[in-house]
Amino acid sequence: MFFTSDNAAPAHPAIMDAMLSANTGYTSGYGAEDAMTSVQQSIRDLFEAPNAAVFLVSTGTAANALALATITKPWETIFCHRNAHIEEDECGAPEFYANGAKLTLVDGPDAMMTPENLQSAIEYTGRLGVHNVQRGSLSITNVTEVGTVYSLEQIRALTKIADTGGVKTHLDGARFANAMVALDCTPAELTWKSGIDCVSFGGTKNGCLGVEAVIFFDPDLAWEFELRRKRGGHLLSKHRMLSAQMQGYLADDLWIDLAKQANTMGQKLATGLANTRNAEFMHPSHANMIFASLPRAIHDKLAAQGSKYYFWPADPASTGDANEMLSARLVCNWSTTDKLIDQFLDNF
Amino acid sequence: MFFTSDNAAPAHPAIMDAMLSANTGYTSGYGAEDAMTSVQQSIRDLFEAPNAAVFLVSTGTAANALALATITKPWETIFCHRNAHIEEDECGAPEFYANGAKLTLVDGPDAMMTPENLQSAIEYTGRLGVHNVQRGSLSITNVTEVGTVYSLEQIRALTKIADTGGVKTHLDGARFANAMVALDCTPAELTWKSGIDCVSFGGTKNGCLGVEAVIFFDPDLAWEFELRRKRGGHLLSKHRMLSAQMQGYLADDLWIDLAKQANTMGQKLATGLANTRNAEFMHPSHANMIFASLPRAIHDKLAAQGSKYYFWPADPASTGDANEMLSARLVCNWSTTDKLIDQFLDNF
Amino acid sequence: MFFTSDNAAPAHPAIMDAMLSANTGYTSGYGAEDAMTSVQQSIRDLFEAPNAAVFLVSTGTAANALALATITKPWETIFCHRNAHIEEDECGAPEFYANGAKLTLVDGPDAMMTPENLQSAIEYTGRLGVHNVQRGSLSITNVTEVGTVYSLEQIRALTKIADTGGVKTHLDGARFANAMVALDCTPAELTWKSGIDCVSFGGTKNGCLGVEAVIFFDPDLAWEFELRRKRGGHLLSKHRMLSAQMQGYLADDLWIDLAKQANTMGQKLATGLANTRNAEFMHPSHANMIFASLPRAIHDKLAAQGSKYYFWPADPASTGDANEMLSARLVCNWSTTDKLIDQFLDNF
Amino acid sequence: MFFTSDNAAPAHPAIMDAMLSANTGYTSGYGAEDAMTSVQQSIRDLFEAPNAAVFLVSTGTAANALALATITKPWETIFCHRNAHIEEDECGAPEFYANGAKLTLVDGPDAMMTPENLQSAIEYTGRLGVHNVQRGSLSITNVTEVGTVYSLEQIRALTKIADTGGVKTHLDGARFANAMVALDCTPAELTWKSGIDCVSFGGTKNGCLGVEAVIFFDPDLAWEFELRRKRGGHLLSKHRMLSAQMQGYLADDLWIDLAKQANTMGQKLATGLANTRNAEFMHPSHANMIFASLPRAIHDKLAAQGSKYYFWPADPASTGDANEMLSARLVCNWSTTDKLIDQFLDNF
Repeated sequence: MFFTSDNAAPAHPAIMDAMLSANTGYTSGYGAEDAMTSVQQSIRDLFEAPNAAVFLVSTGTAANALALATITKPWETIFCHRNAHIEEDECGAPEFYANGAKLTLVDGPDAMMTPENLQSAIEYTGRLGVHNVQRGSLSITNVTEVGTVYSLEQIRALTKIADTGGVKTHLDGARFANAMVALDCTPAELTWKSGIDCVSFGGTKNGCLGVEAVIFFDPDLAWEFELRRKRGGHLLSKHRMLSAQMQGYLADDLWIDLAKQANTMGQKLATGLANTRNAEFMHPSHANMIFASLPRAIHDKLAAQGSKYYFWPADPASTGDANEMLSARLVCNWSTTDKLIDQFLDNF
Repeated sequence: MFFTSDNAAPAHPAIMDAMLSANTGYTSGYGAEDAMTSVQQSIRDLFEAPNAAVFLVSTGTAANALALATITKPWETIFCHRNAHIEEDECGAPEFYANGAKLTLVDGPDAMMTPENLQSAIEYTGRLGVHNVQRGSLSITNVTEVGTVYSLEQIRALTKIADTGGVKTHLDGARFANAMVALDCTPAELTWKSGIDCVSFGGTKNGCLGVEAVIFFDPDLAWEFELRRKRGGHLLSKHRMLSAQMQGYLADDLWIDLAKQANTMGQKLATGLANTRNAEFMHPSHANMIFASLPRAIHDKLAAQGSKYYFWPADPASTGDANEMLSARLVCNWSTTDKLIDQFLDNF
Repeated sequence: MFFTSDNAAPAHPAIMDAMLSANTGYTSGYGAEDAMTSVQQSIRDLFEAPNAAVFLVSTGTAANALALATITKPWETIFCHRNAHIEEDECGAPEFYANGAKLTLVDGPDAMMTPENLQSAIEYTGRLGVHNVQRGSLSITNVTEVGTVYSLEQIRALTKIADTGGVKTHLDGARFANAMVALDCTPAELTWKSGIDCVSFGGTKNGCLGVEAVIFFDPDLAWEFELRRKRGGHLLSKHRMLSAQMQGYLADDLWIDLAKQANTMGQKLATGLANTRNAEFMHPSHANMIFASLPRAIHDKLAAQGSKYYFWPADPASTGDANEMLSARLVCNWSTTDKLIDQFLDNF
Repeated sequence: MFFTSDNAAPAHPAIMDAMLSANTGYTSGYGAEDAMTSVQQSIRDLFEAPNAAVFLVSTGTAANALALATITKPWETIFCHRNAHIEEDECGAPEFYANGAKLTLVDGPDAMMTPENLQSAIEYTGRLGVHNVQRGSLSITNVTEVGTVYSLEQIRALTKIADTGGVKTHLDGARFANAMVALDCTPAELTWKSGIDCVSFGGTKNGCLGVEAVIFFDPDLAWEFELRRKRGGHLLSKHRMLSAQMQGYLADDLWIDLAKQANTMGQKLATGLANTRNAEFMHPSHANMIFASLPRAIHDKLAAQGSKYYFWPADPASTGDANEMLSARLVCNWSTTDKLIDQFLDNF
């Protein structure tokens, strides 16, 4: 009963099959293989963006940092939520790739920036002319780091403010598919139709082995991105390792099916927990992640049964009152089954 | 009646005299001139720190950024107050010099970090092992950016927490002399005896033309600092331009006398404003800066008389109710006179 | 008949099998999986280095740049040959990762630095104290970029000079196995026993899909490397993708067998070309790469038969005298067959 | 008898007077003072460039590094001579400010790049698409580091090649006035009329205390430069320290007179040495610097008389044959007198 992370799960067999199929004979490398042309076309079609520039890298940190560096100057700042992955979990990768750019933290409940706070942060920044860092970019994570999902209206409210302030926009879509399924919208609606300039389109957490696409709706940024990717050591020679995964991921809507399963399981778990009356939710659960406090006694039972998940935001003391509420993060993924959820809930 | 900034004032005549006297004949440059040896010795004596490494640069931003880069790795963070000069007024210089290090903002009233908030920020940082940025350094500004002064006890409370967390400490002493005079303490007490590892010892705001010393109490960091200074373009060839200023500044306690005058004028102005009952103070005024709200009608009278100062944090609307309270920053300096203060207060 | 590059070939089936086998069930990620512990032990054993720190990344550029950044300060220089991959083929990745460090180019025939030139370059560097960049590290590529192999004596002559100058040493072993097979030596002899401090131990060019190990014989550098890798976006969440490849690569001496095949084919091709008397060798061929000039007429025949390889260093004019000698790079790999070589040579 | 460096001399009295005159009353700082407006206009007039952007910094390293960073991307390379100050004497400042850009060294006799070598270097760079660093900028030093002066024809030959290759051009004019006087040309002819895009216009070596102008003929680069300068800690608060110097320097053609004196003394010394027949010139002497080998016996006599200069490129053994020829650099400056030259030559 693993709920530690969607990236602790294996890759879907179809992804592995695609990699095997691609591993035959000689090909051009470095993204010049035919499979990459096909991937680019698929993504352009999916996003209704015939001119989009599409690239692949092997980690979400690389996707985010390279994308943000391409739209943010070293003396500018990236507006993001205090809980953003780029702030809390990338060891300063955006600052590194953007040559010393800053992150300006914008508050809001449930890891979602509010328009008022973003407006205020953008106004404050740059009020001092040359003395202050300048306005650069906005990065929105959807699904957020605490399992909530920005609605299209919420995204548009933020990107509109950004646009008014001359700020470019980035979507950290490490869980892009989960957000899209939760919102029942199209890729275009979740991105450029809502004012997003570039996207980290994640595959790894949703059944791939290690691949993320970076999509720029403005193809003028393509060449700079290519140079940054190469210089960052993120251009694979046997690039088919990445393009094959993405082909397998997009074929026959596999990526949507996998996200649906993860979200369905997430909602089943959330509903089940709510019904037990033994859980207190830290945040609403919109997709495949649940943040909830459970009594220590339940945690102990779950641990005894072999359940794995993270206490959140940190490990509690190892002993204490059986009724003490301890917070945890529970993540479902493409391979989570009904049976697993049922077994989990049986402990309540 | 200029209260815009202590750096809008001219240099003290004795500083200019020192520069003139130094401008004779050939000397070694790049800090190898005899005057620099003398400056180093004077500062070591003043700080009761016989092994301290002492360097000069021409701006406070350079002093801060170079000092912080020397004690902070690129993947580490600098803890500082949200209103710190390094956060708000240096266009990302610390991030640039420290090759992409981050600033973690610590709150507290009157631009002073509280020990609780610092403790909390240090604990939170680095809880994720390799995934998060690491604990790096602490930067304390004294006099703070809003005119308050940390007491020695307050400094020690912060540096003790830093030390426990393996965090090096920096004092942004752009107004070092004003803080020391306000606290009636020694340079050593304000720094290493209170747990400070390195100091930006400002001269420019207190009567020099453009010189700041950087002092490391651990001389092992000297060579790295020298390389960083050169690489930053901050090693002057005709370095006597800096060492002469610092000689003039330290001679006969000129630096202390100048700060006393600035602080005395600051306190006279604060007292006078308090007596008018027309001013509301935004922050306590401990040294030479006052942050206060005054009625628009008073502002108008002051402007008509030629007073110059900044509205703070930003310019208000140009017209409005005569009783509307508008906030301003008023800075006294070494050249501010009793007469000037009196003229200012006559408008109330 | 593909001789374009060893990284245009597919991965060996055993590598793919290892990846498939690893793709079952949940594991810890980020290198904490059991397979990585096993990889580290295997490499420590192979290198007779029980304390070595071992890491995996997905590209050779990342391996080189991260390793060099860990042993080179921003104000230092990396000594390397003018033809080094880090100079010519990584778009400035070492400069980026080392935050602006420099590369000092050292000459020598056949892409091999001579001790005299290295000695001279090291002496020249840093002669100006703080004014010049400082001595940092030495990077030796073996197999070199033109297919020659440094002997152990040659390596030791260079590393001894480096050591005397306080310069750390790095081996770019993108073709480590090919060099080792060519020299008939042990991994330890090729590295730390010959004065090498850290190694990029390549897998991708020799039958893997995308994995390179970085090995530090001084484990004190491990933590800094880990932070740099994470910050560079090179720490994979589903890290088993890398550790599985490396397990498959090292199992049953597969890595040695693959390099033997590539080198044997390289030598067969070199001998065959020499026998034709129609080829002029640009460099000696010690492993799996041949740099040779062939008559245009032969190139035309080869192209007509479907041979693929790069003209070197650049494409010639598209038409010309049939006897004109045009230079090319021919690379054999683990999958190159006797039959392929015979077909190639049949055109002469 | 000091010939060590033009920056070991004091500032000209008129420069000090200008600084004294500027040190009265309050002014705006950070370059917003009236004096800076005047400086900008003077330089625009001098250079016949009514739209030029003009900035001041306090060191030549800052001027060069900031200017080059503004016209060179991090993944690009700066073409310069092997003996360029930016390569040999700035501790990697250009690489630091340009966030890891590279320097590509171009050879040529007497520290002057030849068009053929520049053409070849530009062609070679970037031939590998994304794999190689890209073409960035060209930096020409005039007067060169060995005392020669590029003719206008030579400059135009280089800038024309640069332009064809899409490469921006920078003139390191640390000794701009000496070059202009040597060539008997106008500032415009030495720069934009010869294809130069931006200039480091030096004052420090020619009688100022510490000031260099940076001039962009394309004002679109101004704002980026301003941000880079601030972020580098090179924007002085009491900026009048710089603008006053430059006003004094440009007033009444002082800058030209000072350079004429330095060059005249240089040529007198060169002629005198040639006449002794005891000197061997390492390079032609076109301005105020002589690189010559003299017998050890002469060096000993000069030292006994108190002469100061650098052996070049490094100190020789302390004892040896009296006839042994030892190389030295002799630099004349604005304060060098006929008498001094005569005294020097009397030793032959």
